[in-house]
Amino acid sequence: MNYKPVVILSRPTLSQNIGSCARAMLNFGLTEMRLIDPQANWLDSDARALSASADAVLEKAVVFKTAQEAFADLQGVYATTARPRDMIKEAISPREAAVEVNACVNSGKKVGLLFGSEKCGLDNDEIALCDKIITVPLNPDFSSINLAQAVILVSYEMYQGRPNAPARDVLWERDDPEAPREELFGFYEHLEEALENGGYFQVDHKRDLMRRNLRNMFSRASLTSQEVRSLRGVITALTRSAQSLGK
Amino acid sequence: MNYKPVVILSRPTLSQNIGSCARAMLNFGLTEMRLIDPQANWLDSDARALSASADAVLEKAVVFKTAQEAFADLQGVYATTARPRDMIKEAISPREAAVEVNACVNSGKKVGLLFGSEKCGLDNDEIALCDKIITVPLNPDFSSINLAQAVILVSYEMYQGRPNAPARDVLWERDDPEAPREELFGFYEHLEEALENGGYFQVDHKRDLMRRNLRNMFSRASLTSQEVRSLRGVITALTRSAQSLGK
Repeated sequence: MNYKPVVILSRPTLSQNIGSCARAMLNFGLTEMRLIDPQANWLDSDARALSASADAVLEKAVVFKTAQEAFADLQGVYATTARPRDMIKEAISPREAAVEVNACVNSGKKVGLLFGSEKCGLDNDEIALCDKIITVPLNPDFSSINLAQAVILVSYEMYQGRPNAPARDVLWERDDPEAPREELFGFYEHLEEALENGGYFQVDHKRDLMRRNLRNMFSRASLTSQEVRSLRGVITALTRSAQSLGK
Repeated sequence: MNYKPVVILSRPTLSQNIGSCARAMLNFGLTEMRLIDPQANWLDSDARALSASADAVLEKAVVFKTAQEAFADLQGVYATTARPRDMIKEAISPREAAVEVNACVNSGKKVGLLFGSEKCGLDNDEIALCDKIITVPLNPDFSSINLAQAVILVSYEMYQGRPNAPARDVLWERDDPEAPREELFGFYEHLEEALENGGYFQVDHKRDLMRRNLRNMFSRASLTSQEVRSLRGVITALTRSAQSLGK
């Protein structure tokens, strides 16, 4: 059985933030939330409103008194925090952590991702119980990051690095393929003939360059057959209005 | 001159969200915000509170009536949105966009990152003015993402891919280096002698295996000289208490 990582919030103080965390988790398919000694009601109306219909995550949240109890059944815990200066513990980026955590998940291990409270972050006793630290590389001049924002960044990286993630997300599948080249060439001829008639190519020795530039522009646009037909309609319409003006 | 990308919010409806966006931007070093036809006061107390001291971003925000005006001086605009079904426009991931945008920034171009309103997202007329679409790969069963969360994910990727980003963020530099091996070996001998005296190695033919397992555990821990000394102190203390018990 493969477990997705568990998100653990230590002493969260605002119910809105707990709700936002639930939404952020579910955005990337994480559903298991644990709360250590929560200082706010994670099921109040603010939490539910901010969860934006991720209520199920809040309702399934499990509460523990201490970090030790919350970690008991986990085989690895990563603490998300700035690197503590007075502790020797490896700190890695969310992207590096995603590789490790997903490898653990893949081998059937249950892993936790720990986040500290809005006010005080994590204390050193909690960090000492964790295997490694995840540190988000941040603007060193403004590194105060919101709790739910930290949760979404780490969850996002876990999702990007998930075992079954496509090498490249296929985000753009054209329903309508690009026009066959001959349709494009027909359009070029149509356009150039119309331009010739309109006196566009005034300087004879520049004709080739001007024509090439125009063709280049339309070639880059990856036009569909329908779009080529539309453009031919544009030429027809433009020349028609020129004719009526000339009358 | 190199410009960082500009974050453009189209018709944002909640001042808290605008404040959260400012904070998210500054977390990753982005400072230039534009607002198209904002539906909320981006300088009210909610916006300022949620910006968590990123007020300067809010105060410098520039307001435009239309997308066309907001884009006027930009050489490229990326629209962050789910892929529209009825439009032919390339959609790429935030990570792919970061490569492109940072290349543009590097060559002195000014690029915008457009985000739609909380309620309605971007309309097709706005998207049609953009070069490409950025689509965050999301849980297909829960893809409703908060505005500031979208801004932080895209800003994060821009920051990860920034031209001067280190190949691997050096997050963990030990002030105190690992102990020289000979100190570790001295500790092993100390420990094993104490264990021998305590009758730890009861089964003679398992002695080598038991010793190897112990050494292996401590070898993995990357101990510093100070920590080795502490552990030797632990052995001394434990044997001392055993002796006093034996008295």
